[in-house]
Amino acid sequence: MIKLPAEEFRPMGTIQELVILRGHIIDSLILAKVLDTVLMMGGTFDLEEVSIGKTRDESSHAKILVHASSAQLLGDILQAIQPHGASVERERDCQVERAPANGVFPERFYATTHLPTQVRLQGEWIDVGRIEMDLGIVVNAGRTAAHALPMGEVKLGDLVVTGRTGIRVSPLQRPRERDVFSFMESQISAERPHGHIIADVAKRMLALRDGHRAGRPDCKVLLAGGPAIIHAGGREALAWLIDEGFIHTLFCGNALAAHDMEAELYGTSLGYGLTAGRAVPHGHEHHLRTINRIRAIGSIQTAVESGVIKQGIMASCVKRGVQVVMAGTIRDDGPLPGVVTDSVEAQAAMRSAISGVGLALLVASTLHAIATGNLLPATIPTVCVDVNPAVPTKLADRGSFQAVGLVMDAASFLRDVARELGARP
Amino acid sequence: MIKLPAEEFRPMGTIQELVILRGHIIDSLILAKVLDTVLMMGGTFDLEEVSIGKTRDESSHAKILVHASSAQLLGDILQAIQPHGASVERERDCQVERAPANGVFPERFYATTHLPTQVRLQGEWIDVGRIEMDLGIVVNAGRTAAHALPMGEVKLGDLVVTGRTGIRVSPLQRPRERDVFSFMESQISAERPHGHIIADVAKRMLALRDGHRAGRPDCKVLLAGGPAIIHAGGREALAWLIDEGFIHTLFCGNALAAHDMEAELYGTSLGYGLTAGRAVPHGHEHHLRTINRIRAIGSIQTAVESGVIKQGIMASCVKRGVQVVMAGTIRDDGPLPGVVTDSVEAQAAMRSAISGVGLALLVASTLHAIATGNLLPATIPTVCVDVNPAVPTKLADRGSFQAVGLVMDAASFLRDVARELGARP
Amino acid sequence: MIKLPAEEFRPMGTIQELVILRGHIIDSLILAKVLDTVLMMGGTFDLEEVSIGKTRDESSHAKILVHASSAQLLGDILQAIQPHGASVERERDCQVERAPANGVFPERFYATTHLPTQVRLQGEWIDVGRIEMDLGIVVNAGRTAAHALPMGEVKLGDLVVTGRTGIRVSPLQRPRERDVFSFMESQISAERPHGHIIADVAKRMLALRDGHRAGRPDCKVLLAGGPAIIHAGGREALAWLIDEGFIHTLFCGNALAAHDMEAELYGTSLGYGLTAGRAVPHGHEHHLRTINRIRAIGSIQTAVESGVIKQGIMASCVKRGVQVVMAGTIRDDGPLPGVVTDSVEAQAAMRSAISGVGLALLVASTLHAIATGNLLPATIPTVCVDVNPAVPTKLADRGSFQAVGLVMDAASFLRDVARELGARP
Amino acid sequence: MIKLPAEEFRPMGTIQELVILRGHIIDSLILAKVLDTVLMMGGTFDLEEVSIGKTRDESSHAKILVHASSAQLLGDILQAIQPHGASVERERDCQVERAPANGVFPERFYATTHLPTQVRLQGEWIDVGRIEMDLGIVVNAGRTAAHALPMGEVKLGDLVVTGRTGIRVSPLQRPRERDVFSFMESQISAERPHGHIIADVAKRMLALRDGHRAGRPDCKVLLAGGPAIIHAGGREALAWLIDEGFIHTLFCGNALAAHDMEAELYGTSLGYGLTAGRAVPHGHEHHLRTINRIRAIGSIQTAVESGVIKQGIMASCVKRGVQVVMAGTIRDDGPLPGVVTDSVEAQAAMRSAISGVGLALLVASTLHAIATGNLLPATIPTVCVDVNPAVPTKLADRGSFQAVGLVMDAASFLRDVARELGARP
Repeated sequence: MIKLPAEEFRPMGTIQELVILRGHIIDSLILAKVLDTVLMMGGTFDLEEVSIGKTRDESSHAKILVHASSAQLLGDILQAIQPHGASVERERDCQVERAPANGVFPERFYATTHLPTQVRLQGEWIDVGRIEMDLGIVVNAGRTAAHALPMGEVKLGDLVVTGRTGIRVSPLQRPRERDVFSFMESQISAERPHGHIIADVAKRMLALRDGHRAGRPDCKVLLAGGPAIIHAGGREALAWLIDEGFIHTLFCGNALAAHDMEAELYGTSLGYGLTAGRAVPHGHEHHLRTINRIRAIGSIQTAVESGVIKQGIMASCVKRGVQVVMAGTIRDDGPLPGVVTDSVEAQAAMRSAISGVGLALLVASTLHAIATGNLLPATIPTVCVDVNPAVPTKLADRGSFQAVGLVMDAASFLRDVARELGARP
Repeated sequence: MIKLPAEEFRPMGTIQELVILRGHIIDSLILAKVLDTVLMMGGTFDLEEVSIGKTRDESSHAKILVHASSAQLLGDILQAIQPHGASVERERDCQVERAPANGVFPERFYATTHLPTQVRLQGEWIDVGRIEMDLGIVVNAGRTAAHALPMGEVKLGDLVVTGRTGIRVSPLQRPRERDVFSFMESQISAERPHGHIIADVAKRMLALRDGHRAGRPDCKVLLAGGPAIIHAGGREALAWLIDEGFIHTLFCGNALAAHDMEAELYGTSLGYGLTAGRAVPHGHEHHLRTINRIRAIGSIQTAVESGVIKQGIMASCVKRGVQVVMAGTIRDDGPLPGVVTDSVEAQAAMRSAISGVGLALLVASTLHAIATGNLLPATIPTVCVDVNPAVPTKLADRGSFQAVGLVMDAASFLRDVARELGARP
Repeated sequence: MIKLPAEEFRPMGTIQELVILRGHIIDSLILAKVLDTVLMMGGTFDLEEVSIGKTRDESSHAKILVHASSAQLLGDILQAIQPHGASVERERDCQVERAPANGVFPERFYATTHLPTQVRLQGEWIDVGRIEMDLGIVVNAGRTAAHALPMGEVKLGDLVVTGRTGIRVSPLQRPRERDVFSFMESQISAERPHGHIIADVAKRMLALRDGHRAGRPDCKVLLAGGPAIIHAGGREALAWLIDEGFIHTLFCGNALAAHDMEAELYGTSLGYGLTAGRAVPHGHEHHLRTINRIRAIGSIQTAVESGVIKQGIMASCVKRGVQVVMAGTIRDDGPLPGVVTDSVEAQAAMRSAISGVGLALLVASTLHAIATGNLLPATIPTVCVDVNPAVPTKLADRGSFQAVGLVMDAASFLRDVARELGARP
Repeated sequence: MIKLPAEEFRPMGTIQELVILRGHIIDSLILAKVLDTVLMMGGTFDLEEVSIGKTRDESSHAKILVHASSAQLLGDILQAIQPHGASVERERDCQVERAPANGVFPERFYATTHLPTQVRLQGEWIDVGRIEMDLGIVVNAGRTAAHALPMGEVKLGDLVVTGRTGIRVSPLQRPRERDVFSFMESQISAERPHGHIIADVAKRMLALRDGHRAGRPDCKVLLAGGPAIIHAGGREALAWLIDEGFIHTLFCGNALAAHDMEAELYGTSLGYGLTAGRAVPHGHEHHLRTINRIRAIGSIQTAVESGVIKQGIMASCVKRGVQVVMAGTIRDDGPLPGVVTDSVEAQAAMRSAISGVGLALLVASTLHAIATGNLLPATIPTVCVDVNPAVPTKLADRGSFQAVGLVMDAASFLRDVARELGARP
C-alpha cells in the first residue's frame, strides 16, 4: 500500500479521475508508460496505491489519480492511457450507438487493438469475441455478448461500442518460462543467432501436432507464404512439413501455387531451372502454361487427384486436407481456379481460417505477412521470416508487436525447421 | 554482303533453317545473343549474309543458317531465338487454334512479351494490338486483326495464336539521342547520381503536359504509388504535380487514399504526426476513422465536393479530373468507397487506363510497381523509385527491363521533380 | 514516501543490498527496467521509498532493497542494474587496480558506457572525463581525477577502476522541450516523415554556427561521411554547408576525398559522369589518376592552394580551416597524402577531434557511422543517414541508442538541409 | 572471311586505325560491344575480316578498321575499346616512363583491370605478373618482365607502362562446362535458388582440398568474413570446415576473432547469448574482456596453445596452420594482438596471401568483400554471400564482375556447405 500525500501541490481548478491498472504492470513497463503519458500530455498524477507482485506470477495493481486543467484534456489523457489497460475506476457500462448505415460505424466507434479486450455490459465484464486489430465492437441486442467486427460487415442499426469507458484491454502476460515469444524479444536484426528461434518453433510445432491430432483447440499451425519459398528452394521442405502433419492452414497467393505446380510440370520457378540453377529458354512462360493447364482441368484438387500434379506444396495440401486460402492480387496472371479474387471475401476467408491457430509462420511475403498480422490476435505466437529486414520492421510498425522477426531466406528457414523435426536432407 | 563458305564443315545428317534478324541487331547485342544461344543449345550456324548499318540510324540485318542434329533440337533453337526478333525466313502465316473453354487458351498458345509484336495473317504482317507481357494473342474471325488478351478474358472458340511461326517481335530501337531510358541504362544502384534522371523525368513531364493539353496521343503520365508517399512527406509535392496538370492517371490502393485524407482530417499518417514528427496518442485509429467517415459520406468525390476533404492528393485528383484506379488488397481496412476489391476487375481497369500513357512513374509500392510493370508495353518509359533496391530488382526480374531504377525515398523524389518543374518549396 | 511492509514474505537466508535510483527514473522507464531485471534474474525487491517528481522538471528517486539467495547472485544483480544508474547505497569508493602491462587492463576492469559517469574517490563523486563506450577508467595518482581510456593506451601501473562499486552512471535526462533527439525517438523506419528531423537538424546547425563563431564550447558540428555522398550528387550541398560555416570537423576515408577531387578534375565519381549520368569510357581510372596526381603534388592542401583543386568538399575544408581526419582502410587505392593509415592512430585522431562537438551527422558510411558512434558520448545529438536501414539498426545494436536514424539517400539529405539553411538550388 | 566494301561511304578527311579482336568475341558479346562503342563515340568502322569459331572451343577473330574525324577522337575510341581486348594492329612495344617520385606513377600510367594482361616488350608479348585491378605495370630494367604494382610501392625511377599501345587484355574464356561461375551468371537476386551454387562450391572445395594436399598450385581456398558469421550462428560450421582442411587462408578483422573467442570464453557474441538466444546482462562487455585477456596472454596462438581458447575458428586456424590476416579498422576495440593496424601493410599482407588461391568465399563483410575483391584476379572463382543484396551489388559496381552473389545469411551458407561436405549437424 502506497500513499502519496501530494494533494497540497495540486493547482487550483484541476479536475481529476481515478484510474486503475492491473496485471504485470511493472515488468511490462505499463505503469511507467502510463505515468509518462500523463506527464507528457500536460497532466499530473498521484499514485494512490501501488501493490507490486513480489514474484513473476503475482500480478500488481495501481490506482492513479489523474489531474488535468480541463475536462477536454482529462478526456484526452484517459483516452491515451486506455490501450495500456488503464480502466477508469468509476466503473460504468460501455457506451453504444447504432450503426448509421450498412458498412459504417458510428462516428465515435471504439477501434480495437489485437489484445484481449472486455466491455462492461449491464454491470458485467464480458470478453469481446473474435478480437483483431482495427475493428469495431458490436454488442448483441440483449447486451449479453460482444464481438469485434470489420467495418464492412456492420449492418444498419447494429449496436456499436463508442467512446472509451467500460472497456478493458489486458496487456500480454509474460510467459512463465522465458521463450522466444516473450514480449521484449521482438527485435529484428540480421545479426542475431537464429538457431534457438528455429528450435523453439520446431518444439512448438511438435506439441501443436500432438494437440491437433488429439483434437485440442487452438492447435493449428498457419503458414502464410510467398513465391520466394519456391524460387529459393524451400518447396520440398514445406511439402514435407505438410505431409508430416505440421501445417494445418496455408495462406498464399496465385504465385506460390503457380510456381509450385510449375516446378512439378516444368522443373522451373519463374522460368529459372531449380536444379540447373539457370534461366531456361522460354522458361518465363512456364508459369503461364501451368496456370492455363490447371484452368483447363478445372481445379487444383482435380489436378492432384487425376495425377497431373503429383508432388509439392499444393499436392500435399490436397492430400493432407490442409485448408488453403489463395488470395488474388492485381499482379496475378490467370488466376488459378480457387483464387479468391475479391479482397474483402479473401480477408473474410482468412479471418475465419485463423480461428483455432496456435502458431503463425509468415514467410517471405510482405503482403501476406502484413495482411495476416492484421488479423492475428496478439496472443498468437507469430514468426515473420524474410531475407529483407524491412518486412518484420513493417509488421511491427503496423502494430503486430508480438511477431518475432527472423532475417533469413525462406528456404534456409524451412529446411532448418524440417531438419529439426526429423526430415532427412 | 557477307558470305561464309562454311558448308563443308557441316556434319552429315543435320537439318537446317534460315532465319533473319532485322533492326539494330549489332548495337543492341541481338546478333551476338542469337549466335550465342545457337551454340549454347548445341546447334551451329553459318552467317549467310550480314549487312551492318554504318550509322546509328541505319539498321542492320543478318541471315543465319541454323543447323541442328534433329528436328526437335532445331525447333527448340528456333523457339529460343525468336524473342530476340529472329524470324524464320520460310515465312508462313501464324498458326491458330480455338480456345477450348472460356478463360482457357489452347495448350500450345503463344505467350507474349511486352515488345512490339506482329503476326502473319494471310500473307500480311499485322501489328498485335494492346501488347503486354504474359498474354495470349487472339485473331479476329476474318483473320485481319490481332490483339493480346489476358487468359481470363478469352472465350470458348476464340482463335488463339499457337506455336512460334509467323510471329515477329521487334527489339527496342535505341533512341536517337541518348537519354536515361536507353536500353542499357536499366542498372539499379544506390550509388548512382539521381540528378540527371530527375531532370530527364521533369523534361518529359513538361513535354507530355503540353502534348496532353494539345490533345496529342500517348501523352498521359501515370503514377502508381504506395502509402509511403504520405508517410515520408511527399503528399504536398504530389498534390502540386496533380494541380499543375503533370499527372493524368493514378494507380493506388486503399492505404494511399486513406492516409492522404487522414493527413487532411487529422494531420497524421498511420497515426504519426506529419509535422510533429512523432506518434500521436491513438493516432493509429485515424486512418480507420477517416475510412469510416468517407464511407458515411458515400464517396471520395462527394467528400471533396462537399468540402470535407479540401486538399491533398485525392482532392487534387477530383478537382483536376485525374483518373484514379484504387485496387483492393487483403490488408485493407474498410475499404474506402471506390476501391475495386476484385483483383481481376482492378487489373482490367488498370489495363484500360494504361492506354495513352507516355510515361510511367512507379513510386514506393512493390505491389503496384510489379502489377503496373506487367501491364506496360516495353515502349513506355518507366521509372521505378524505391528506397529499397529490391523493388526495382524485382521489377527487372519480372521482365520489365525498360524500367529505370532509382533508389531514393519517395518524398525526396517527388519534391525534387516538383522543384525541377517550378514548385516553390 | 512509499513503504512496503514486505519483509515477512522474504525467504530465509537471503542477503540484501540497498540501491538507489535517482533522476527521471519514471518517465525514462528506468525504475521499471531495474525492477524487471531484478525479478528476471531470480531476485526479489522491496521498494523502500519512492519519491516521484510531479512535473517533468522534478526528478524522482527510489530506494530499492534487493534480495538474493546468494552473494554471487546478489553481485550479479547489482552488476546488471548498475548501468541503469542504480548506485549501491552503502556508498564506498570505487576500487582500483594497477594495469599489469602496457595496453592491458586489470582482469576485472570496469567497462564504460557512453553515458555520463562518476566515480567515488576519497568520499567524493568525481566526473569521469572523456567518456566513451567500451573504455576503462583510469584514476590519477592523487585519486582526485578520473578519465576514460582506450585499452591500447593504458600504461603498466596505471590505476584502473575495477568492479562496480563506487560508480554512478546517469541516465540521459529527457529534454525540456520535445525534440527529435529525445531518447525514445530512436526508431528507424523508412516510413517516417523526414521533414521535421531535417528542420530540427538545420535549426541546431544555425544555433551551433552562432555559438561556434562566438567561441562558445561544444558548438562544433561533425560530419562523418562516405563516398556515396559524391556518387549520389550531394557534393555541392556539402561544400556549400562547409563554405557557410556549418561544418567544423569532417571524418572520412580515402574514397570520399578521392571522388570529391575526381569530380573536380574529371567530372566523374567512380568513373560515372555526374552530369551525364552515365559511365564514361575509362572513367574507372579517374579516381586512380586523381590520387596519383595529388600524391605527386604532395598534399591536398597544396593542391587546393595551388589552384589544382578549386571547388568541392576538400577545397572548402582547406579554405575554411575545417579539421579533416581521413582514416585508411584495406580497400583504399593510393592512398591520398594525409590519410592516416594506422587504425589506432586514426581512432586517436578522431577521438581527439570529437572534443567540443555539439552535433554529429553520420552520413552514408557504415564504417564511419559505427566507428564515430563508438567514440561519441550519449549526450551528443547524433543523426545517422543512410538509404539502407541496416546501418542505423547496426548503430543501435552497437549501443549508440541516442542516434536518430534517417532512411534516405545522402544527397537528398544534404540538399534538404542546405535548402533549409538558405542555399539556392 | 568477311569483306565489307564500305570504303566508298567513308567521309573525307577521316583517319583510321586497324584493330584486332581475338578470342570468344562473339559469345562473350565483345564484338558487339566494341562496335557499339565505336558508333556511340562518333566513329565509324569497317569489318575487314571476321572469322567466327564454329564451336564453343574454337575462338574467333575480327579485324576492324576504325575511322574518326580527328586524331584526338581516334585516340579516345582506341582507348575506350582497349579493355575489351582490342589490340591495335600496327603492333608496337608498350611505352614506359620513369616514376617521378616514390609512390607516384607517371601522369599517363596505364591502370590495370583484373583480367589477364600482356605487354609488348622488345617485340615480345610478356604476361604481366601479379595482376589485380587499379594498379600500374612496372617493367624490369632489361625489359624482359613486367608485373603489376600498387601506387604506393612504386619507387622513383621505376619503368612504368603508360598509354595504351602494346597492351593486350584477354577477355575471360567461357568455361567448357557450364558452371555457376560462368561469366553471365553474376546476377544477384534474393529470388534465385541457392542449392546448386552451394553444391558447386562444395564440389570445388573437395577438389581443391585434394589438390592442396597433393601440393598442386592454385588450390588454396580463401575465406574473407565478418563477425556476423559468429552472431548468426555459423561459428561451428566454419571451424569444422577449417578442421577438415577445406579453408587455407582467412581474412578477417578484429571483430570476428574477438567474437569467436568471446563465444569460447563467455558463450556470447556481442553479448548476445548464442544458445540462450537473448541478451545476457553486461554481455556487451564480453568482447572487451576477451580482447583484454588475449592482450594479457600476448597472442592468439599462445592463448590456443596454452588451452585458454580450445575451440572455434581461431583455435582451428592455429591448429591447422591456416594463414590468417587480421586487418584493423577504426571501429576496433583493443585491438587483439596480431591485428595489422596499418591499412597499407594489411593490404600488402592480403595481396601476398592471395597468391595461390583457387576459390574465394567472401562472407558477411562489406569491407572485406570489397577489399578482397579489389585484390583478386578475375580468373579466381569468387562467391559473395550476404543477407543484404547491396553487398554483392557493390562488389559488382566496383568491377569484380566474376563474383557470384548469394543473398542468404552467413550461418545458413556455412552450415549448408559443411553439410554438403559431410558434416554431421
